[in-house]
Amino acid sequence: MTHIDAHSVAGAGAGELIWPVGFRAYTGNGGLRAHGDDISIVASDRPSVSAAMFTRSRFAGPAVVLSRAHAAGGRLRAVTTLAQNANVATGRQGEENAAEVVGRVAKILGVPADAVLIGSTGVIGRPLPMDAIRAHLETTAERGTGAFEAGPLDVARAMMTTDTRPKTSTRRVGRARIVGVAKGVGMLEPNMATMLAYVFTDAELSPTALDTALRGAVDKTFNCLSVDTDTSTSDTVAALANGAAGPVDPAAFSAALAAVCLDLTQQLASDGEGASKLLRVTVAQAAHYAQAKRVAKSVVNSPLVKTAVHGADPNWGRVVMAIGKNTEDTDIEPAKVTVRFGETEVYPEEPAAGTLEKLAETMRRDEVDIMIGLGIGDATATVYGCDLTEGYIRVNADYTT
Amino acid sequence: MTHIDAHSVAGAGAGELIWPVGFRAYTGNGGLRAHGDDISIVASDRPSVSAAMFTRSRFAGPAVVLSRAHAAGGRLRAVTTLAQNANVATGRQGEENAAEVVGRVAKILGVPADAVLIGSTGVIGRPLPMDAIRAHLETTAERGTGAFEAGPLDVARAMMTTDTRPKTSTRRVGRARIVGVAKGVGMLEPNMATMLAYVFTDAELSPTALDTALRGAVDKTFNCLSVDTDTSTSDTVAALANGAAGPVDPAAFSAALAAVCLDLTQQLASDGEGASKLLRVTVAQAAHYAQAKRVAKSVVNSPLVKTAVHGADPNWGRVVMAIGKNTEDTDIEPAKVTVRFGETEVYPEEPAAGTLEKLAETMRRDEVDIMIGLGIGDATATVYGCDLTEGYIRVNADYTT
Repeated sequence: MTHIDAHSVAGAGAGELIWPVGFRAYTGNGGLRAHGDDISIVASDRPSVSAAMFTRSRFAGPAVVLSRAHAAGGRLRAVTTLAQNANVATGRQGEENAAEVVGRVAKILGVPADAVLIGSTGVIGRPLPMDAIRAHLETTAERGTGAFEAGPLDVARAMMTTDTRPKTSTRRVGRARIVGVAKGVGMLEPNMATMLAYVFTDAELSPTALDTALRGAVDKTFNCLSVDTDTSTSDTVAALANGAAGPVDPAAFSAALAAVCLDLTQQLASDGEGASKLLRVTVAQAAHYAQAKRVAKSVVNSPLVKTAVHGADPNWGRVVMAIGKNTEDTDIEPAKVTVRFGETEVYPEEPAAGTLEKLAETMRRDEVDIMIGLGIGDATATVYGCDLTEGYIRVNADYTT
Repeated sequence: MTHIDAHSVAGAGAGELIWPVGFRAYTGNGGLRAHGDDISIVASDRPSVSAAMFTRSRFAGPAVVLSRAHAAGGRLRAVTTLAQNANVATGRQGEENAAEVVGRVAKILGVPADAVLIGSTGVIGRPLPMDAIRAHLETTAERGTGAFEAGPLDVARAMMTTDTRPKTSTRRVGRARIVGVAKGVGMLEPNMATMLAYVFTDAELSPTALDTALRGAVDKTFNCLSVDTDTSTSDTVAALANGAAGPVDPAAFSAALAAVCLDLTQQLASDGEGASKLLRVTVAQAAHYAQAKRVAKSVVNSPLVKTAVHGADPNWGRVVMAIGKNTEDTDIEPAKVTVRFGETEVYPEEPAAGTLEKLAETMRRDEVDIMIGLGIGDATATVYGCDLTEGYIRVNADYTT
């Protein structure tokens, strides 16, 4: 797996946020919400190869089912997204509606329907407002791709639901460019992929190379993200490469792709519903990667750790509790464990006088790092989450109404 | 497993809340907190048999380690509890402190140290205030067991931390009586036992019969409880039977014991930190019990379901999301699943006009029932939790400070 700089800054050394050569995009309001764009389309003007990963939810929606079939060929050319309605648990009508949207988008672009991936995000169990969507796409068809003038930030914005910020990231690799857009704030513990993240590049890659690079990156980025332990029915991550910039060094591409995915992951975590801070938990000295990730997840997901981080309460005992609840990890011995908050060790050395105040100060920062050593082996994993606040409750106690 | 009435009411048909014959109790303030009793002792004046179960946390505290050894013989005669400090992650000094408290309590009672179980609950990682505790127990020793005049409600109150209500339950079985006391509000997803629940009875039972009855009851009550998915380092459940009332029908005893445990479980759930409602999730038609419980737990623990219940928001789609995230249950098919809130079916039939308002009304009650059918087999499980509110955040963002 490519090394990822865990502290890369959004957009650092990345250059201007514009589409890679040969991609263009459209956004508009299709009547899914009262204000703001809610439909987006990003398309390559030439054939491209693709890789994609989807939610493993048993209640995956029609958009995921249809897109999974289309993605299988590795030849996606366009991605369209409906925001505000997930079109999940909507029965046969929901399947027909997803197919109709894909068919209309394909016609606008002049590509086969199975070259289009559709993402749908928002409330579950409500029918799509098809009359409004149909009328909007008919108008778009009349205007043609000449109306495709949206930038990456416009697309990221049109994908938002309760997101407070659009999430984008870009990197250069050789002569090529990688651009990623993502959305997601709650129902966010992805399992194989996250709630709508798309990466576009003009690098020239084989479908296999793109797939390998994407899986490697997702495993250590989106799949290490958890806002609230709830896995969406609509998670989708896709990468499209149209080759317009020619070939690139595969290792450099993998590293740049991983950096874009990590950047988006940290943006998603710190904009988790109600979140005021990014929480990064690293578990080292584990027997193997799966154990490191499991223990790190149980800390980053602990409501008691998350609320303590929110209140900058130096109640570090909750971290050892969250380590201890991994009862299947019988090789974890309290005597071998170490816990640090940033630079401050809190266990096993009983914190010296003044340490708790120093700890509280560390916890008041926008980004809180918890470092755990298990003293067993040499595997390491880092996971990304956020604090748990009154804002999460407010956002979610009346989301549909 | 004994049948449990899922809707039993606290204390219904239970008679007066007094200790079974031969048990007496003491409570006092040992300096663990500023106000209110924080030390309690419940003891049998004659030999008794016992059964006990403890947390499976890898960071189990000295109280659990010591009590597990003492409980192994099945001959516990007394239970002592320290509230406000869990005495966990406190090193060798913590072990010595727990042993000293047990030794002093045993001396007061004139029983061997290994007949005493100790429970300790509260903040993790802080040393016990041993000077104050020692002084208090010396005074208690001078007064002797003549000072043992506390009732079950006093003991339940002296065990509380952020609990807002003491939890007790009692049942008659033949000529015998069963009395249970419990505490626990957060860090509450027990794994084998819950945060301090004790059951006392004057029924005459063999250690094996008591152990079997307790394990059967705990499996379907305390182990079906989750307030916040966090497993305590101090979970302990113990049952003491001193035989003073003579033999009882074993099946009747198991049923009564299970009813007491269920009663305490529902009291614990509805007093979860910040909780305003009891949330009960039943999964039926599962392939086996483990599947039914796993799916029910994933619904009762979903922050999005819990916040929707809090806001009485009829966003039922979150329930299908929470079912779907059990990705290992590949036999779950959306087409076979049914979901009801109380009497109101919401899936697969698209709710008729007015249904959502009726659903919101159901969700405004103090107890919310979600019933799920998987359409696979005939196993059923019910789990107990609560809503997620701003109160949980407030209580936990500054618990130690």
